[in-house]
Order: sequence, then structure tokens, then C-alpha cells
Amino acid sequence: MEFGRIYKKSNPTSYCLGGSLTYECLKEKPEAMRHVFFHPDFMKSEKKEEFVSLCEENGIPWSENERVFRRLADKEKCTVIGEFAKYEDPVKPEESHLVLHQPANMGNLGTIIRAMSAFSWMDLVIITPACDLYDPKVIRASMGAFFHIRFSLYPDFASYRKEHGNKPLFCFRLNAARNLPDVSLPKGCALVFGNESRGLPAEFDHLGEGVLIPISKDVDSLSLPMAVSIALYEYRKGVSV
Amino acid sequence: MEFGRIYKKSNPTSYCLGGSLTYECLKEKPEAMRHVFFHPDFMKSEKKEEFVSLCEENGIPWSENERVFRRLADKEKCTVIGEFAKYEDPVKPEESHLVLHQPANMGNLGTIIRAMSAFSWMDLVIITPACDLYDPKVIRASMGAFFHIRFSLYPDFASYRKEHGNKPLFCFRLNAARNLPDVSLPKGCALVFGNESRGLPAEFDHLGEGVLIPISKDVDSLSLPMAVSIALYEYRKGVSV
Repeated sequence: MEFGRIYKKSNPTSYCLGGSLTYECLKEKPEAMRHVFFHPDFMKSEKKEEFVSLCEENGIPWSENERVFRRLADKEKCTVIGEFAKYEDPVKPEESHLVLHQPANMGNLGTIIRAMSAFSWMDLVIITPACDLYDPKVIRASMGAFFHIRFSLYPDFASYRKEHGNKPLFCFRLNAARNLPDVSLPKGCALVFGNESRGLPAEFDHLGEGVLIPISKDVDSLSLPMAVSIALYEYRKGVSV
Repeated sequence: MEFGRIYKKSNPTSYCLGGSLTYECLKEKPEAMRHVFFHPDFMKSEKKEEFVSLCEENGIPWSENERVFRRLADKEKCTVIGEFAKYEDPVKPEESHLVLHQPANMGNLGTIIRAMSAFSWMDLVIITPACDLYDPKVIRASMGAFFHIRFSLYPDFASYRKEHGNKPLFCFRLNAARNLPDVSLPKGCALVFGNESRGLPAEFDHLGEGVLIPISKDVDSLSLPMAVSIALYEYRKGVSV
């Protein structure tokens, strides 16, 4: 059975492990949902009717199934699983883009997607190789915000620039000369962040404008989700004034 | 043997699992270090001499010991463990305080301590019950920043106020009327944040000034480490200008 299999990157589908994630997918991307599984414990829950209605409105099959929980969510206490088809929802050229260069950590990636959603930032570009954006761990760390955003993957930065070459670029680097509070981030820009441990490679030293979030000498760097959330917070402040 | 035991909250000592954490403790709080353990694999490392010198300068015993790694760090690839006595280093009354009300997640707490250090914020107050500040998971998530900060624990907020009643209070709440960018945070203030899932209880609604980090309706809240890091970033910007 396809759906019971442990998740793999090569699968055409992925999973929402839990009721609130499944609900977000049903609300935001019902066309991607393939099947909703209910644990026997959930069948008596008050919330069941709402899930069943959403499934039936959208022609999505659902079933009671204990085994899929044992296979997919052995250690989690979840009673609803949504299986969704991996879909594409490309970034809009005119919007501001968050560009992550080879992000490696799935928890971080999900946390960043949650922060994007918090700051109404819709467009995410990932330069591969990177961790699997569709992995259930990313979906869960995003707390369902994954289903609110648009995303595009590119095999290298040059391919991204070929398509979106007109955007003002701001590269977040520890060796940059200008501090974030002093840089104004215009609408329609691209904010570029490097990998968690390596940062941005040297080829970015002369691309666009370098930006630094000033920190003390006692720590090497901020964590990637913190650096990104501070940048999105500053951007939002700037454009909403 | 005391040192080989799996960590417990009631232990008088805790552990730095890994070379860089142990190094931070040796540099910043050598008086707390009780013993440094080297894995047999580390004995050939170039770095060994530096650790041994630091131990000997400070009269700290060290030994080669494989078993302690199996007991304490089974799943991690670490080759140095530092055992340190739980010490106190109380907050300074005149400095700004970060006050966390009943924080529950050790990874979050460590991440927050790392952010404090990044923004040169030295003083942390924890209102208990809370997760164990000395747990090796907190030390690791702080990436060693734990050894740079000062901290005080209080059984309730009233006890904290009794000692530090003169500080301007800023309570971060989702129902606050004023937005962070419009509030200026003075030197010597206290920034108060609630528990990860519950936020601040209602008794804080009329305490000090309520502050909100404006976010979209699509998400319930920012994660606690993100909210704290944005506040510390704003504070630092304000006082350094």
C-alpha cells in the first residue's frame, strides 16, 4: 500500500502528522490532499465532523486506519494524518523573495516558513542541494504555514538570477560593511541567506549589497531562523510605514 | 561513580557534551569545572594539549575515560565532556533583565541564551516552575553562551518585583495595544515573556507596559526564541544609537 509506507524524498506524496496541520492543508490546498486518515481514538472526537465535511466538500477520501499511525507517527501522539501530493506553487516575480542558499536543517526550514507567514512574507526560493522542503518534519516545524507560502527551487544561484535578475539583492554576510538597521529594504527585493554552518560562499561577496546583523564578539553568529526573522521583521516595519 | 551517572536535575553537577562547550566553560567559569573527560579518540588530537594546559593552569583534574561517553553521550559524536558544578551568578540590579515566565522547552531556553549573548544582553531571570536551566540540553543549545550570562531564579513574579521593583516593565503579550517598533526600551528595563504555549497569564495584563510584535493573522504567534531575539535586537539598536 502506497500510503502506509514510511516517508521518502522520492515519494510523490508527503504527510501532515496531526490534526492542525491536516486542517491547514484542507483549508489552504484542498486540491493537493489525497487522503485523510483518522486514528480509531479520533472517531469519537467532536472535531471529526468538521474534518469529514471538509473532505466531502472537496471530494477527498478519508478512512479509519490504525496501521498508518504506527508506520508514520509511532512516537507522536497524533490522531489525524493527511496525505498530500507534492505540489508546485512558484514564487511571484514582482514580490519580495527570501532566498535560502543550500539550507540543511529541516527544523530550521520549517521554523523559517512559520516566521515568513508571521510577517506576511509569501515567497521562498531555495538554492539546492538542500534539505527536502516537503519532508513531514518541515511541514510540522512550519506549524502548517507551509500551505500558505509560494516556493521555487533552483539548482544554483545563477539560474535564479537568470529568471529574476532585476531584483535588488541583499546578501546577509558576517563580513558585510553595512548594518541591517541602516539599510532600507525596498519592496520587490531579494534577501539572501547562506547555509546554517557555512554561510554564503565567497562568490556572494560582490553580489548586490552585503548586510550584517550586528552581534557581539562572544558568539559566532545568530541561528539562521533568528537572522531571517529579524530581517523579515525589519522589512515589514519599513514597508508598512 | 558520581561522574558516570546519567544527568539528573537533582545532581550538584552538570555536563558540557563536546569540546567547544567544555572550552567555553574552561575559559569563562574555570572555577566551576570539576573534571574534564577525554575520549580515547581525542588523545591523539592536536587540540588535546590546549585542553590539558587549561585544566592544569586551573587545577582541574582530567582523565581518559571511554565509559562516561557511553553513559552520557551515547548518540552524540563528542570526544570531550566537561563536568561542572552548578553555580550561581545572580543578575545585576542596574542592568536590563530578560524575564522568562515559566519557560518549558530546553532547546528554546538554550537558543534564547545564545541570542542574549549575541546581543550582549547579560541578565536572565527565570520565574519557576521552569525547565532545568542547567540541563546539558540547555547548555548545548546555548552553544556555550550559558557560561557568559548571569541568571537568577524566582518562585513567582512578586518575589522578583520585591527585589527589583524599580525597573520599567515591558510585558510581551498578544493582546497588547502598542507595537514593538513604536515603544522605546530604556536602559535598565525588564522585558517579560510568557511560556511557549500559554503566554503570560492575565495578571500581567495591567502590569507595566504591554508590547506586541505585530504579526499576520495567519499564525498564532512567533516562536518564543524569535520573539525574544527580535526584542533584544530592537533594544540593542535603541541603546547603541
